[in-house]
Amino acid sequence: MKSYTISDDEFRARVRNVQALMPEMNLDILLAFSTESEPAYVRYLADYWPSFETAAVLIPASGDPWLLIGPESLTYARSRSRIASIAQLRDFRESSQPAYPGSNLPDWAALLRDTSFETCGIAGWQMFPQAIYSDLATTFPGASWTNADDLLRRVMIRKSPAELDCLRQAAKLSEAGLKAIVEKIKPGMTEIQVAAIGAAAMLDKGAESTGYPVWCCSGPNSNQAISRPTHRRIGTGEVVQVCVGAKVAGYSASIGRPLLLGNCPPDVRSFLEAGRNAENLTFELLRAGTPAGKVAQQVHDFIRQEGYGDTLLYGPAHGCGQMECEYPFVETSSTFALEKDMTFMVDIFLANKEMGFRWEDGAIVGEGSAEQLSSFNREVVVL
Amino acid sequence: MKSYTISDDEFRARVRNVQALMPEMNLDILLAFSTESEPAYVRYLADYWPSFETAAVLIPASGDPWLLIGPESLTYARSRSRIASIAQLRDFRESSQPAYPGSNLPDWAALLRDTSFETCGIAGWQMFPQAIYSDLATTFPGASWTNADDLLRRVMIRKSPAELDCLRQAAKLSEAGLKAIVEKIKPGMTEIQVAAIGAAAMLDKGAESTGYPVWCCSGPNSNQAISRPTHRRIGTGEVVQVCVGAKVAGYSASIGRPLLLGNCPPDVRSFLEAGRNAENLTFELLRAGTPAGKVAQQVHDFIRQEGYGDTLLYGPAHGCGQMECEYPFVETSSTFALEKDMTFMVDIFLANKEMGFRWEDGAIVGEGSAEQLSSFNREVVVL
Repeated sequence: MKSYTISDDEFRARVRNVQALMPEMNLDILLAFSTESEPAYVRYLADYWPSFETAAVLIPASGDPWLLIGPESLTYARSRSRIASIAQLRDFRESSQPAYPGSNLPDWAALLRDTSFETCGIAGWQMFPQAIYSDLATTFPGASWTNADDLLRRVMIRKSPAELDCLRQAAKLSEAGLKAIVEKIKPGMTEIQVAAIGAAAMLDKGAESTGYPVWCCSGPNSNQAISRPTHRRIGTGEVVQVCVGAKVAGYSASIGRPLLLGNCPPDVRSFLEAGRNAENLTFELLRAGTPAGKVAQQVHDFIRQEGYGDTLLYGPAHGCGQMECEYPFVETSSTFALEKDMTFMVDIFLANKEMGFRWEDGAIVGEGSAEQLSSFNREVVVL
Repeated sequence: MKSYTISDDEFRARVRNVQALMPEMNLDILLAFSTESEPAYVRYLADYWPSFETAAVLIPASGDPWLLIGPESLTYARSRSRIASIAQLRDFRESSQPAYPGSNLPDWAALLRDTSFETCGIAGWQMFPQAIYSDLATTFPGASWTNADDLLRRVMIRKSPAELDCLRQAAKLSEAGLKAIVEKIKPGMTEIQVAAIGAAAMLDKGAESTGYPVWCCSGPNSNQAISRPTHRRIGTGEVVQVCVGAKVAGYSASIGRPLLLGNCPPDVRSFLEAGRNAENLTFELLRAGTPAGKVAQQVHDFIRQEGYGDTLLYGPAHGCGQMECEYPFVETSSTFALEKDMTFMVDIFLANKEMGFRWEDGAIVGEGSAEQLSSFNREVVVL
């Protein structure tokens, strides 16, 4: 079996790519923060994915980076980190906030005693804790702190060949999850049981984890754009919104499908087909050089022409990679142009008060229409 | 099958219990924040568990609370929330930070236009984002902001009968996960496949999800206090550290066990048995009225007497409930006394450079020795 991984050389290049952009933003150091449910930046720079605790990567203007972790993760981090220098700080401990009597961890002043800096960029700005920010600002009262998400996004937005391979494999495993569900779903199962069938199939076939908490929402629950599965038993004749995604070496894909159990009235079929056709149109339009906002406008226009304008919530696509949903969104207000090797989840979610559904598959942008990472069961089939 | 749930009345009482303590801390309003991987406070107050986006519950000094969510979660939140009033704010959107053109969501000023306050408590202080804090502080320059974790902890620390039932069921399902692993684990399986067996069994039998990302770490990986499973294939004669936990109606339990495949040298057996005996001792000592620090001291003394003092990292127990690991920790520096209906995971993790293991089971504190939520396979058995 092929092993999917990112090389040590590529990890080193990532840090250098960040350092190359730091002078432009006038940054002396950069701190990239991650949590268990938002692992992207630390996983991208160090291959480390925190659990229970949080983590950050500290990058100086030149020289080697540090992985910063909490008090309980040292042996775990040593087994995973591509960054050799690892420091443990109390600020990254778990939310239960143990005191760890007898431990002797450095504080920020000790950690940075040999690092002189005036400006620090923080990536993960939207989730960076006020408590850690306050510790830093108190310890270094002369320093200034800047949102550095844009710097990381520029480095991460076009995927390397190895990253594309991981995403292709994640999509293939996501298809395996969906296939297992299509084969086994039956009225009377709970939504949780159906979601678990997909997760088990993906893990058994080589996913490192699910890419997000997979869901299955049936009947009156199907119109939830974001959801979690419940103990509700699926009934005959219902629309079931299934979203399954696998993670491979840090890269997450997803497949979203409406499944129909035993019945599909003509008006529901028309609604579903309009969404499916909007998804196919999006793949056709996602081409290098095209303004992203124009793609969104054309897809939304199509959905409106089909008579479903009032069922739109967002979209029609969002970035994917380290997160199943990462920057950038393709929406009507987008101001960037598509580039080769940008990767997206085409994500057509439409819902009214009674029902909803999602058609979702991964896309790699190139010169022609986008490479489709998955396509299994992209049709209205009554099971 | 019995349905495990917390009643609407109990949810209303939780909000009133928070409000009852607010004058003591001189708080006019309270904001309790949660994320996908740290859902405790919002789940406790609203029964809502964010996914992709974040969330908070806003509690005024008197009157009804609000659930605050992101732009994509409205139908999901309406299907789950025990709090009737729901508002969507951009500050709780996902980290990919879509712009949602055309949407018309309130900002903090609009949301709080009829609420006059001078002091706001923030629960979830250690993870509350600097970005949201900054929005609030800019919008309400005269207000002061306080860490209110202690208030929520006081309300949450003793469990109700319904909460205890959820925890008992979560432990029972965790046992089912461990049983499935013990029955099926074989040399040659990957750690991920083994962990997935446990997760699938728990979900099939009624868990709403795993309580945390379950793990299995084998041989040289077994000494990781916190971990994630890898693609490493388990070998004969290895110590395998397995940690599985189910979540029921928001409540998470866990079971940790060392599994031995095919061989157990005498020195390893002595090490494992010392840990197991330390776990049994902890259950014996966890009694209402006993100072928590004294329990920790006695258990650590026992482990030192057995000759394994240098293998200690923390413990011997931590709170459990909405999080598998929540406040308070039982450690030698603890200053609180144990009370009836406090709940803990007894968690004896010992490790040296070559190997490690965890004996973990849930405990409910009462007058005598603690109620043990699980005990399956708490012995050194060579499979």
